[in-house]
Amino acid sequence: MYRTHNNGALRLQNIGETVTLSGWVQKTRNKGFMVWVDLRDRYGITQLIFDEERSSKEAMTMASELGREYVIQVTGTVIERESKNPNIATGDIELLVSELQVLNSSLTPPFTIEDDTDGGEDLRMKYRYLDIRRKPVRQNLIFRHKVAMAVRNYLSAKNFVEIETPYLIKSTPEGARDFVVPSRMNAGQFYALPQSPQTFKQLLMVGGMDKYFQIVKCFRDEDLRADRQPEFTQIDCEMAFVEQEDILQAFEGLTRHLLKEINGVEIGAFPRMTYDEAMKKYGNDKPDIRFGMEFGELNEVAQHKDFNVFNQAELVVGIAVPGGNQFTRKEIDELTEWVKRPQVGALGMVYCRYNDDGSLKSSVDKFYDQNDLIQWAKQTGAVPGDLICVLSGDTAKVRSQLSALRMELAQRMGLRKPTVFAPLWVVDFPLLEWDEDTKRYHAMHHPFTSPKPGQMELLKTHPGEVKANAYDLVLNGNEIGGGSIRIHDKEIQSKMFDYLGFTPQEAKAQFGFLMDAFQYGAPPHGGIAFGLDRLVAILGGQETIRDFIAFPKNNAGRDVMIDAPATIHQEQLNELHLKLNLSEN
Amino acid sequence: MYRTHNNGALRLQNIGETVTLSGWVQKTRNKGFMVWVDLRDRYGITQLIFDEERSSKEAMTMASELGREYVIQVTGTVIERESKNPNIATGDIELLVSELQVLNSSLTPPFTIEDDTDGGEDLRMKYRYLDIRRKPVRQNLIFRHKVAMAVRNYLSAKNFVEIETPYLIKSTPEGARDFVVPSRMNAGQFYALPQSPQTFKQLLMVGGMDKYFQIVKCFRDEDLRADRQPEFTQIDCEMAFVEQEDILQAFEGLTRHLLKEINGVEIGAFPRMTYDEAMKKYGNDKPDIRFGMEFGELNEVAQHKDFNVFNQAELVVGIAVPGGNQFTRKEIDELTEWVKRPQVGALGMVYCRYNDDGSLKSSVDKFYDQNDLIQWAKQTGAVPGDLICVLSGDTAKVRSQLSALRMELAQRMGLRKPTVFAPLWVVDFPLLEWDEDTKRYHAMHHPFTSPKPGQMELLKTHPGEVKANAYDLVLNGNEIGGGSIRIHDKEIQSKMFDYLGFTPQEAKAQFGFLMDAFQYGAPPHGGIAFGLDRLVAILGGQETIRDFIAFPKNNAGRDVMIDAPATIHQEQLNELHLKLNLSEN
Repeated sequence: MYRTHNNGALRLQNIGETVTLSGWVQKTRNKGFMVWVDLRDRYGITQLIFDEERSSKEAMTMASELGREYVIQVTGTVIERESKNPNIATGDIELLVSELQVLNSSLTPPFTIEDDTDGGEDLRMKYRYLDIRRKPVRQNLIFRHKVAMAVRNYLSAKNFVEIETPYLIKSTPEGARDFVVPSRMNAGQFYALPQSPQTFKQLLMVGGMDKYFQIVKCFRDEDLRADRQPEFTQIDCEMAFVEQEDILQAFEGLTRHLLKEINGVEIGAFPRMTYDEAMKKYGNDKPDIRFGMEFGELNEVAQHKDFNVFNQAELVVGIAVPGGNQFTRKEIDELTEWVKRPQVGALGMVYCRYNDDGSLKSSVDKFYDQNDLIQWAKQTGAVPGDLICVLSGDTAKVRSQLSALRMELAQRMGLRKPTVFAPLWVVDFPLLEWDEDTKRYHAMHHPFTSPKPGQMELLKTHPGEVKANAYDLVLNGNEIGGGSIRIHDKEIQSKMFDYLGFTPQEAKAQFGFLMDAFQYGAPPHGGIAFGLDRLVAILGGQETIRDFIAFPKNNAGRDVMIDAPATIHQEQLNELHLKLNLSEN
Repeated sequence: MYRTHNNGALRLQNIGETVTLSGWVQKTRNKGFMVWVDLRDRYGITQLIFDEERSSKEAMTMASELGREYVIQVTGTVIERESKNPNIATGDIELLVSELQVLNSSLTPPFTIEDDTDGGEDLRMKYRYLDIRRKPVRQNLIFRHKVAMAVRNYLSAKNFVEIETPYLIKSTPEGARDFVVPSRMNAGQFYALPQSPQTFKQLLMVGGMDKYFQIVKCFRDEDLRADRQPEFTQIDCEMAFVEQEDILQAFEGLTRHLLKEINGVEIGAFPRMTYDEAMKKYGNDKPDIRFGMEFGELNEVAQHKDFNVFNQAELVVGIAVPGGNQFTRKEIDELTEWVKRPQVGALGMVYCRYNDDGSLKSSVDKFYDQNDLIQWAKQTGAVPGDLICVLSGDTAKVRSQLSALRMELAQRMGLRKPTVFAPLWVVDFPLLEWDEDTKRYHAMHHPFTSPKPGQMELLKTHPGEVKANAYDLVLNGNEIGGGSIRIHDKEIQSKMFDYLGFTPQEAKAQFGFLMDAFQYGAPPHGGIAFGLDRLVAILGGQETIRDFIAFPKNNAGRDVMIDAPATIHQEQLNELHLKLNLSEN
């Protein structure tokens, strides 16, 4: 047996016991007549002590030669520590070692195995197995496990059944790009890895399974944006015989349970907001409502003067930055430069100081007097001491720009507190969105999303205005879940495919099995999917999902530790009926 | 709201309540003045009643027009049933319907949605969503969920952490064939889907995660034998600072827990048997020990006469079939034909009847007298009333043939009782097995398996005799789990690769990251993996894994429901830097 206890277990009551421990050498201190070793494992650190009087000469010698990250096994007696360490759970005791065995030596690790390591991102990823020895990474992985268990036990208790759906499925050009898997046994044919189990969970509803969930890997071959992974994990859920309200209640329950169980935070009924309202108030369909700075639209109060920039704009909109009047001119100039960065894309920023004496001073005083500016304050909710920041231009663009500014200011001002949780349902999403590239409307969610009752007619006349039975769950400015009530009527589904530009042949080839299934008594149904990676990161008070994934890939989709993807043997290619085609496309 | 109750919920105490139900029409009976409908959902069946006096004319008409598998919603009053049905949980009541709404119609399903359906395997797979509406399939899927939850909760309570390992990894030619995934962003390179998370779980041990598990999909591109799936689910486990005994204890605990929790069966310490003993006694490394018929080797008592078939055989071995003397001559001839089928491959079968009067009568009486035959009985443990069946030939082949006969007889005689559970550890597997094709030894388990202590030297002189720290857990004649203590020393691992014929370059290219990791303080570790599909089937008293998989593939690796794999667009191929190569290989 390699150990009787782990390195986080021993306390004062164990004093006098003979125990065996195993673990990694965190550090050693050698005073000649005495050697201390910090022994580490997943559970904690225990201090070992070797001394001239009480330890064997052999053990003393071996102890003094131990390097960092050596794996050792020791047997000894638990004794009380002279100078206790209140920072660790085992800080009252230490182990007087009688026997020491080196189980494995170690090269000097390429970075320090400490909470704050000196290793950069690239090095940590290449040696991820060493990075995982670090407490913050280890705790994140254990935290993820806890969240997943809490999800499973909650849903299971609510009669949801976790059902595994297949990974080797069929490629559908709709949506993002698929990863495909060539079939050796079916020459020239390919499986695809699922972007989500969407059609299978709908088939399970047709199959009467009524409450389904699955924590499942999904795959998207996208050009990776920051903090996206080609493989990611979803909490995928679907229910039959439900309306939107049933789904919102069920998964608000799950989220509330997680916040309580994992974070100890009790939250009442989640607020709800329509997509239109979220865009108008926050310029964003996933607003962070932990802080204010709601948008105030200024068209009516700013388009009556000679300031052409505003007069020609589709939208003039501002926010009141609390206490922002304290910003220096230099700081405001810097903010203006920030919104003009290509990533944000504003052409400039108008601002207005709201002084403590009630007077207002804007950067466009030439055009606006105090009476005008007080209207600006009214619309944005500014009070004395605030700074009003105003952007103008095309509605969609200016909302997105002002939203970016709002989030940046909140970040700088420390308003995005990781231990404060503000969930929000955003509902009534548009059914369709316009795609500039193809000059066509596309399904905003996916082609199985049902329009709101009575809006099928609008499809013909005002497609952009049709709202869907679609909803997102937003937490702290992140979309953590999204779903919809599905179409369960084959006629409507077929009309929708038609509308989205599928020929009947294409619809049949890609979704024929679903259309077929709908002919045999499909129940009303709907669902939701949560991004587990992001959910876990946010509950853990962080925003980088990579820190909560054991073996993440980098932004080029590579696993730098195992060096994948890689070339394969010519024989494998032959068996798969493939040739490489490395000329320029 | 579509329902206030499900169709398994209503009881006598609900009488008088107004409730709303939704579900599928299982069947209707129409007596003109009265219509009964059996309404089905996942939870059960509730009888609906419509009558001329108490239901509206409109509801009566609609009810009489309902087809099988229509989806309906009804509201009505719970009343006591006149003739109760004790076979269903809701059999005391029925629902007198006041309102009926058809939520969806249905075509006539291609097979009956009954416990015993008239649909053949192919049809059921094509319409799997309808097959899932059948109670036996539905119950299997719910059963699978229960088993998976029990596994997770047990291991989680024992401090195991479920950690997700990546699906897009690297192809390694060792072992079975990989499914590969072409990389669009890395031209000419491929990911591979994991055959198991083997190397990642070992890296997690190097990373100090100490107790890991994961219920995870694995992939093997094999020519499919019956009841094998290209994608299958593993309960994958690994522990650090353990010896073989620790692993056996830990997972015997898990299995015992499942048998108790899921099947209500309490089982004490699991028996253990070496691989050599299992082969000698049962001709099989996964013996079904729910019944006897242990092998009796007959070389010493059968090779002293003129029967050349036996004299030239490497092994003469028999089993005593309990009560087998009752078999007619025709039945015995049929058994002889059975062992001569190409799938079994015996050249013939010698038998010996043990009569109730103590006399023995064999099919080779020309060569053997009563004194000889009584020795056969002694070696095989036969008693009067039994039939001794004897095969002879090459040891490995004849063991396999007699094992097949033993299992076939047990099946025919009803000895393989699905509600009796007989777990068994088979230990001390050989490290290597000889491969006739390549004329080389290969790792029997995988190249990371450690030899038994002190046997490294044997590798050079008698490689076939080296035993490994490898073990299988067998349940009712099925291998449900297998694992080993791994090599954690880089020198030994590198010797092992060398021995298995890897050049240092190949070893580095394929497993360099693991060899690297072993340089930084790898702890002693080992693990096990259970096949969840088979485990669930056996606990469920069945042996066909397909019945416990929601959407299985057929023997050609196809999903006949969604018709995958399928061709992909030329544009996709171009993006993946691939061309089809459909000429003969």
